Parts: sequence; C-alpha cells; structure tokens
Amino acid sequence: MRVHVALTPDEVDQGDLHSRAVVVIDVFRAATTVTTALSHGCRMVIPVLTPDAARARARGFPSGQVLLAGERGGEPIAGFDLGNSPLEYSADRVAGKVIILTTSNGTRALLTASRAAVTAVAALVNVKAISHWVRDQCRDLTLVCAGESGGVSLEDTVCAGLIVETLATGGTPLELSDEATIARSVARDYRDRLADLSRDSKWARHLARAGREKDLAVCLSLDAWPLVPLFRNGGLTAA
Amino acid sequence: MRVHVALTPDEVDQGDLHSRAVVVIDVFRAATTVTTALSHGCRMVIPVLTPDAARARARGFPSGQVLLAGERGGEPIAGFDLGNSPLEYSADRVAGKVIILTTSNGTRALLTASRAAVTAVAALVNVKAISHWVRDQCRDLTLVCAGESGGVSLEDTVCAGLIVETLATGGTPLELSDEATIARSVARDYRDRLADLSRDSKWARHLARAGREKDLAVCLSLDAWPLVPLFRNGGLTAA
Repeated sequence: MRVHVALTPDEVDQGDLHSRAVVVIDVFRAATTVTTALSHGCRMVIPVLTPDAARARARGFPSGQVLLAGERGGEPIAGFDLGNSPLEYSADRVAGKVIILTTSNGTRALLTASRAAVTAVAALVNVKAISHWVRDQCRDLTLVCAGESGGVSLEDTVCAGLIVETLATGGTPLELSDEATIARSVARDYRDRLADLSRDSKWARHLARAGREKDLAVCLSLDAWPLVPLFRNGGLTAA
Repeated sequence: MRVHVALTPDEVDQGDLHSRAVVVIDVFRAATTVTTALSHGCRMVIPVLTPDAARARARGFPSGQVLLAGERGGEPIAGFDLGNSPLEYSADRVAGKVIILTTSNGTRALLTASRAAVTAVAALVNVKAISHWVRDQCRDLTLVCAGESGGVSLEDTVCAGLIVETLATGGTPLELSDEATIARSVARDYRDRLADLSRDSKWARHLARAGREKDLAVCLSLDAWPLVPLFRNGGLTAA
C-alpha cells in the first residue's frame, strides 16, 4: 500500500484522489467532535464551509431534527446550537439529530478531499479503528492533515504518523512518501507522551489560553471511540 | 530565539525575513556541493536560476577564473564544467575559482531567502558549524528546506531538526513553531541512522538509481566540514 501524508490541505493532489482512500485528520477539535457525536447516536454530520451555508442547509430539515454547530477562531458562532467542543456533544443533545457543522480548518479539509474513492475522518480518539478500516480498503492511502490557518499542525501530523505506525506494526506492507516517513518519526517521538501536545502545539496553546483545557484532554484520549466516520452523500455517518 | 522551519520554499513568509537569520538546506546535493567547494578553496559560488542565466553571468569574468556548474533532474548540464556531485569539486579543480551554480531546488530556495538579514547554507556536512553560527547571530531563525520539486524532503527536514536539536542541547532557549518541533522529532528518529536516508528519501532513491551512491555517502557525512557558506553581495563565500 502506498501511503502519502498531505501535511496541509493545499498539498493534496486532487487528480490523484479518485482511486485512493482518504482520511481527513483534525485532532483539535473537529474530527474529535464528529467522532464523539456519531458515537453518541447523532444520525449524520453535514460539513459546510460557512455559517451562512449552515443556516441555509438547516432549512431543508424539519425543525427539531437539526442542530447548527461550529466555530470560528475556536469560539462558538452566534445563534448556533453547539460550538466545537466535543464535551457539548452528549447523547442527550445529539442522539437522533442531524448536525450541520462549519469549522475553520476541519470542514475545509474534508470538502477538499471529497473527490476521493472513499473518505473517512480521524483523530487521536479513533486511530485504531481507522487503521483497521484503512487496511480493509485495499487501496493506496492519503492522510490529509487539516492543519492550522493553512500551515502545518503538530498534533495532526502525530495522528497521521500513528495511523502509519499502526498499519506498519500490523504487518501491512507500506511504501511511504517522504511526508509519511516524517509523520511516522514524529509519532514515534510523541506516542508515549501525547499530553505534551498541549504544550508543544501552537493551536493547543491558543485553546488553553481560551479556557479549553478540558477539550484538549478529551482530544488526547487515544482510541476512546471504536468508530469510523465515513463521508457519503454529502454527510458523515458511522461506518 | 524563535525558530521556524519552512518545510518547502513556498512556506517562507517573505515579509518576516528582513529581521531574521535564514539557513537554506539542501542535503542532496547543492548545499553539500557548495560547502565542499568553499572548503576546497573556491573563491565564491554564485547561485542563479537557469542555465542561460549562468552562461550570461560567466561572461562577466575573465576566462579561466570561472566555472559553470549545476544539474537538472540530477544530471549534468551540456557544456557546463561541473555537475552537482560534491566529488567533482576537488581543490585542484575549484581552488581560486568563481563557480556559477544552477540546480533544480537548491538555488531556487537560496534566492527565495535572499531578502533575509543574514543567509547561510547548510547540509549534514556542516550542522555543527551552522549551529554555532546561528547561536552567535542573536536573531530569530528560519530554516528553509529546499525540498524536492515543490514537495517536502525527508533529508532536508532531518538536517533542519539536527540544527534545532544542536541549539537546544547547547542551552539556547528556543521557542519552536509546530514545523520546527516536527523537524526535531524526525532528527531524533534518524540521528543515529543517517545512512537509512539513502533508502527512505525519495530523491535519494532516484540518485541511487542514477548511479550516484558515492554522492549520497558524501552527503551523509555529518560535520565533515567546519565551514559556513554565507550569502553576501549575490554570492556565497566562507564566513
């Protein structure tokens, strides 16, 4: 299996996607939030680019069945039902509901990757489940890091590397791009000290300064959820 | 000291450069070649973007004092005096000469960084010398990886990380960008097995297939040269 890691969404080779499995990674916090929501019984998460697009999309659903969710700059959006903290996505709030989600980096990365043969969403909370899913696809793999404001993010790179390392130690023969090798090295350095990402990642420091330490702890819970969010027909549902 | 690693030249923030020290890294092979040439008594290396620009620039020098050098796709350029193999740059060929150099990735990266307050060139052969030079600059630092065809290269990232690691273990207080932290992790994984870069780097595999294994070995000789090539007045000279 050939494995490439796009360290930012801009590095995705669109022409290459149609035959590949793609996994979009956004550890802090969109992918963790999506995985938590679906684990708590949410029917579907629909990613959209802007708050206005979210409001327009919500009008297509009966009232009471849909929730508006997301953030800009890490903060909740005025008039929306939910922010981007996975702690808000409890079963009593999201079970049976459709969630329209717009975030600064994660939803953009997801929509960038939507031309792929199959697309899933990963964070640290579902590394093992994603790795099993990837192995079963029998396709070349592109891991797309959502990154931060167009730049590279440490935590997404670590997550990508942990997926590569899990595939390698599981015996899948891999042919790695330089970027995939880099991600694997970073994962090896951080796998036994994931909590240090709260200190070493620029975006984590921003979230901590905004009082989101509890979110960071939840996002760093390796393999908390055995669930793969799959992108199909414009929305994310449990595989 | 704030330290950022631009994993490719496209990631350089030009507006940010005027106050910073910049180190351009191209392990396979331009930076190794430049460091070797200056160590062997070459007077100056002048980087230019194209073979035509090299020929035009050479006309400004008295015959016998200047050499045309470089590569495209790893291969020598027709009619040029030297390719891009550091093994060609022996003292009997380059001592006292001016070299006009054009390479696919390295010279482009160097000219991208030419707006910096001070600009040096690094490869694995001069990591320690570069680290001492950087410490003495007392400026924030940007390490620019030349990369490969616009993409990220493993060996340049390792070299950037070794410079970060050398500064950190030397006691310089550092504030790292996510990319600098990533490079440091990759360097930690590879520092005791640099020879593996011949196998794990895409560009190294290309060079090996083209019969350049001896070049790779030379490029992987950590700290072979205690020399810092500095970019001043359009050319590179020993600091």
